[in-house]
Amino acid sequence: MPQHGDTARVDVEALRDLLDGRWAAVRRRARDILRGPEFTPRYGLSVAEHRARVTEQLHALARTDLARYGFDPRYGGRGEVGASVAAFEMLVCDLSLMVKMGVQWGLFGGAIQALGTEYHHATYLPGVMSLEIPGCFAMTETGHGSDVQRLRTTATFDPNTDEFVVHTPDEAARKDYIGNAARDGRLAVVFAQLITGGQRHGVHALLVPIRDADGTVLPGIRIEDCGPKAGLNGVDNGRIWFTQVRVPRTALLNRYGDVAADGTYSSPIENPNRRFFTMLGTLVRGRISVAGGAGMAAKTALAIAIRYGQVRRQFLRPGSDSEVALLDYLAYQRRLLPALARTYALHFAQEEMVSRLHDGFTDGPLDERAQRELEAHAAGLKAVATWHAVDTIQTCREACGGAGYLAENRLPQLRADTDVFTTFEGDNTVLLQLVGKSLLTNYRQEFGNLDPLGMAKFAAGQFLGTVIERTAARSLLDRLVQAAPGRGDEDDLRNREWQRALLADRENHVLEGLARRLRAAPADADPFDVVNNVQDHVLLAARAHVDRLVFEAFASGVARIEDEGTRAVVERLCDLAALSLVEQERAWFLEHGRLTPARAKAVTATVNALCQELRPHARDLVDAFGLNDEWLAAPIALGAETARQDQQARARVPVGAET
Amino acid sequence: MPQHGDTARVDVEALRDLLDGRWAAVRRRARDILRGPEFTPRYGLSVAEHRARVTEQLHALARTDLARYGFDPRYGGRGEVGASVAAFEMLVCDLSLMVKMGVQWGLFGGAIQALGTEYHHATYLPGVMSLEIPGCFAMTETGHGSDVQRLRTTATFDPNTDEFVVHTPDEAARKDYIGNAARDGRLAVVFAQLITGGQRHGVHALLVPIRDADGTVLPGIRIEDCGPKAGLNGVDNGRIWFTQVRVPRTALLNRYGDVAADGTYSSPIENPNRRFFTMLGTLVRGRISVAGGAGMAAKTALAIAIRYGQVRRQFLRPGSDSEVALLDYLAYQRRLLPALARTYALHFAQEEMVSRLHDGFTDGPLDERAQRELEAHAAGLKAVATWHAVDTIQTCREACGGAGYLAENRLPQLRADTDVFTTFEGDNTVLLQLVGKSLLTNYRQEFGNLDPLGMAKFAAGQFLGTVIERTAARSLLDRLVQAAPGRGDEDDLRNREWQRALLADRENHVLEGLARRLRAAPADADPFDVVNNVQDHVLLAARAHVDRLVFEAFASGVARIEDEGTRAVVERLCDLAALSLVEQERAWFLEHGRLTPARAKAVTATVNALCQELRPHARDLVDAFGLNDEWLAAPIALGAETARQDQQARARVPVGAET
Ligand SMILES: Cc1cc2nc3c(=O)[nH]c(=O)nc-3n(C[C@H](O)[C@H](O)[C@H](O)COP(=O)(O)OP(=O)(O)OC[C@H]3O[C@@H](n4cnc5c(N)ncnc54)[C@H](O)[C@@H]3O)c2cc1C
Ligand SMILES: Cc1cc2nc3c(=O)[nH]c(=O)nc-3n(C[C@H](O)[C@H](O)[C@H](O)COP(=O)(O)OP(=O)(O)OC[C@H]3O[C@@H](n4cnc5c(N)ncnc54)[C@H](O)[C@@H]3O)c2cc1C
Repeated sequence: MPQHGDTARVDVEALRDLLDGRWAAVRRRARDILRGPEFTPRYGLSVAEHRARVTEQLHALARTDLARYGFDPRYGGRGEVGASVAAFEMLVCDLSLMVKMGVQWGLFGGAIQALGTEYHHATYLPGVMSLEIPGCFAMTETGHGSDVQRLRTTATFDPNTDEFVVHTPDEAARKDYIGNAARDGRLAVVFAQLITGGQRHGVHALLVPIRDADGTVLPGIRIEDCGPKAGLNGVDNGRIWFTQVRVPRTALLNRYGDVAADGTYSSPIENPNRRFFTMLGTLVRGRISVAGGAGMAAKTALAIAIRYGQVRRQFLRPGSDSEVALLDYLAYQRRLLPALARTYALHFAQEEMVSRLHDGFTDGPLDERAQRELEAHAAGLKAVATWHAVDTIQTCREACGGAGYLAENRLPQLRADTDVFTTFEGDNTVLLQLVGKSLLTNYRQEFGNLDPLGMAKFAAGQFLGTVIERTAARSLLDRLVQAAPGRGDEDDLRNREWQRALLADRENHVLEGLARRLRAAPADADPFDVVNNVQDHVLLAARAHVDRLVFEAFASGVARIEDEGTRAVVERLCDLAALSLVEQERAWFLEHGRLTPARAKAVTATVNALCQELRPHARDLVDAFGLNDEWLAAPIALGAETARQDQQARARVPVGAET
Repeated sequence: MPQHGDTARVDVEALRDLLDGRWAAVRRRARDILRGPEFTPRYGLSVAEHRARVTEQLHALARTDLARYGFDPRYGGRGEVGASVAAFEMLVCDLSLMVKMGVQWGLFGGAIQALGTEYHHATYLPGVMSLEIPGCFAMTETGHGSDVQRLRTTATFDPNTDEFVVHTPDEAARKDYIGNAARDGRLAVVFAQLITGGQRHGVHALLVPIRDADGTVLPGIRIEDCGPKAGLNGVDNGRIWFTQVRVPRTALLNRYGDVAADGTYSSPIENPNRRFFTMLGTLVRGRISVAGGAGMAAKTALAIAIRYGQVRRQFLRPGSDSEVALLDYLAYQRRLLPALARTYALHFAQEEMVSRLHDGFTDGPLDERAQRELEAHAAGLKAVATWHAVDTIQTCREACGGAGYLAENRLPQLRADTDVFTTFEGDNTVLLQLVGKSLLTNYRQEFGNLDPLGMAKFAAGQFLGTVIERTAARSLLDRLVQAAPGRGDEDDLRNREWQRALLADRENHVLEGLARRLRAAPADADPFDVVNNVQDHVLLAARAHVDRLVFEAFASGVARIEDEGTRAVVERLCDLAALSLVEQERAWFLEHGRLTPARAKAVTATVNALCQELRPHARDLVDAFGLNDEWLAAPIALGAETARQDQQARARVPVGAET
């Protein structure tokens, strides 16, 4: 409960503007565009109806700026990468539309822009933006999803005809899950092993037409529908087989690797491994977008559940004849408010991420280390944000009881649609391993992609240096943690510097321990076992890293709030984000002497206290997300429950005393 | 990896028979019946098609024993309550069918049997079993789901016509989410506030016809479809309004409360509160069934993911040209194998629960305390088992990557269908509170249903006695935990008695702490706040209790395995169930000095070791569930992946050396 004289209160508009951030104009524009029956969430559509509707919506968007932000101004784009991510995030009215947009303008168009050269840009980008050329991003094969380097589709250069022959050698090599393939796509960016003069040069991307202008599938192409999915049924995912399909030499997106008329291969990047990861790296925007989209879905679910929890009542308050609002129950608060706090934290982390991406694009190429860090952060944030979204939406679904299970209340669709966000654009578990490895190395090429012994040797050497350097932060920790004995009073736990030090120390210590374990591996150990035995530790290191980044982003976001009352509320929310994380991870802190048992218990007590302090502001905090009411769509969030209770109050059961 | 000379190996058939347990014959029968195209899982059906199919399937089942197990032999039933639960669980080929069966023969038929008297049994049970009378269990209202005592539908006795008038006073009082209502139901068990002579007597159940034999909705009844849901779309859930609907006096299911022709109310149970909870208590089978159904769904998902993980390969094994099977990755094992272990644990707990239910029914009424315990265990097990199912299925979905998101691989449907198992038959959070309260009191009536001050006073008195008595187990703990210093070697952690003592001690200590906090509440505290402030503690107490019960059930299940090799494997699985739980809850054990940091880390290391030891047996352990291949249905679990890899091996890409 707010203390007497507490001035904490949210200025919803001001907070919304702050959250809207650097691309506020884009978000406002999206709020205007995505209105009315055309964009209102619908449920109960058949797969065919849903796909048709989403395609129509996409055509409507193609007539707006939303389609153009990410592209080069020379061809009619706006050259605002950050804006393109913001626009993508806003499509929460239907996540199928969000994903279909992402496929067309993010993945497909983005690959042409990033991997192609001027010829491709001039020839295709205008049609990509206008949707005259609906396209696919055909990377994944049935046999290889996470391990893209092992794709088996081949593109063999035939110097006699100056063409590439694109071919699917076996069923494992068919392209699978490809968005836009089953119904709409005409052109596909196809990732294949490039072969010329009997030599393989690794995975490259080529433009391969798959349907003609009438939508008829072209000769040599076979397409199968992936059929119904858990969600995202407005997206037409399909499988594609190529039988000796010939495309001109110019079909190769040749920025990072080219083939001359005589079949000679050339590339600005010598090392094939580095070349491959450089190409992949240019596609990082997709991951960042998915993290943002997941965040928006979580916000939408929280807005529904908190609005409902605020008015829904269940069980009498003892000694009265009024019923208790769900949001007054501690257990209910504990389910929703830490999730709300983390959603805020992730929001600020996302905003930071998008800004870095944007500046990296705008100010010219990042240096290698900065690029690697950007990719690692994107991977980590994507994993953490999408899991958070899935968990949060599920919690919101359950928090709304039976009503949460009905399609009319939107939560089922949000839940089913976001589910796969944990898998596509890189499976989360695999991504976190990338983060862990990137943390360990910072010089990936020094020991190749997966060589564990090199990794171990490296870890033994240089690496520990870095860690020790970083743990200079440690002295602060010593002061704050070790010094604070026993019970740990609350103010202390709400100290932002202490929180920061605690999370940073965990990050360092986990990484240090990982390096130590790798170093300890005997020289003759099976390299697979060496890495595999610490796989859980690698994942922990990655999470600890992302947790710290996300916290920092929230903390610096709070500091930017000018309105005092608002800042007071959001400070608490930031405390809740930090402390509910510490609570969840407190086993680690206890095991490593970072928290005493008494202090760990105080963390739990403070989380409870923060929940109760924030409860009066919960509605404002979700309103500040600036979601159009029509995107929430759920009757339970838009007055139906209140109307029923009003009617119930008028219709008291006309009977005498209860026996 | 299995040690050299390790004789652990699973005799799949023997283990299956053991798991089949007391109602093995029913399970075998179900495996026979639920075969062929009629019962094979189907996906991509429209809501209307799905409903029609499920109704047809239900009619097919009506012609088998499966419909009759739960009913009184006098009317054609088999009088085997346990068998009826086992039969319900087996319907994992389509959870809509499972739930629709549960509505018809469990809830609807079960209520007539439990709450009605001979007239109702003789008149209705034969038609209920044969499905000539499809019915509804109409308890929940839009306004009141968890708090059933506050239902607002009224049934007012009119002595002039010897009828009850059933009425919906307002929108909050409409019946909602009612299975079988939107399409098929003809008769409904309606829960309503009984009013006679101007006096309310609390919630009672009446039989109200809602459609005639042609399926036309009757006058005074209004029915609305709940529309599409997240899952279970083969079940026709609907809303029902009653406008002054008249039913004869005999429509009252009058076992626990009756109205004479002159309007006089009588009941064998004086106290209205106790009466109400006694009536609800007779319906406990529904909850137990849901726990079992959730367990079967989790088994199905695990069978799919483990079979796939066993053959699916991704990423090269360093220094070789073969790819690593997913199940060889520690991270993958950690996602699936602890879930598998817990699924086994819950299986044995469920088996025990069903046996107790059955014996309670068969050997005459349980005494009050035993009944209360049965209900608390059922509530706790239902909550824990359904959350476990949802989490496990989600994990399995993600573990199967993109393939897991396709409807053809069944996981999406299992996930969406089980989701609501956490909500219906009692919302899990609410159920765990019931468990917590029942633990605290054991004499619920002593301080009424929700009176926290009474609870607090009680806790201060008698209750602590019980706890202290129970903590006699403590001395054992002292020996095992306190005595074991420092590092804790592995054998020690695998000691079943130590595990048991650890979990029992946690249960007692959490409860003790809760009682202490309640006792500490000042006399003038707001009763709502007193209880609300410890709500998270109540939930923890409930979980600790259920965790201990589930563990005990697994431990005694293992002891029943005769085959030595099999027992050796399942012993490890039991260790994994215990230790992965301890790992997950280790923060508590650390906070309370039950585990030293070193020992807590040893727990994590042992969980990893157990995962690797169990990996070779994972496939056998899911095969022992005895799920028909056609129920798994997923191509990825039934050879498609292996076939593709074989083809891939034959079709090596015909190129020279890689550059
Ligand atoms: C709806 C949908 C849309 C999609 N759209 C596109 C698209 O438009 N274009 C496109 O190219 N692709 C698309 N994809 C494919 C998607 O990117 C892949 O599904 C994803 O990359 C995962 O690959 P996979 O399915 O082969 O899973 P796998 O790589 O087989 O992974 C399966 C599981 O194994 C685990 N695993 C893998 N490797 C390891 C390891 N080393 N250690 C521990 N665990 C491991 C993973 O965590 C995962 O849980 C889409 C997929 C879906 C479902
Ligand atoms: C598919 C489906 C089928 C169903 N079939 C039937 C049927 O055939 N017959 C029938 O009668 N009913 C049926 N139900 C209804 C079901 O039993 C109810 O939805 C359920 O009991 C929960 O009630 P509610 O929806 O009103 O949720 P509420 O009671 O409003 O609960 C909403 C949320 O509030 C939380 N909450 C409530 N009280 C507290 C508290 N004291 N402390 C903390 N948190 C609290 C809960 O945890 C829950 O998350 C069905 C429901 C569904 C979705």
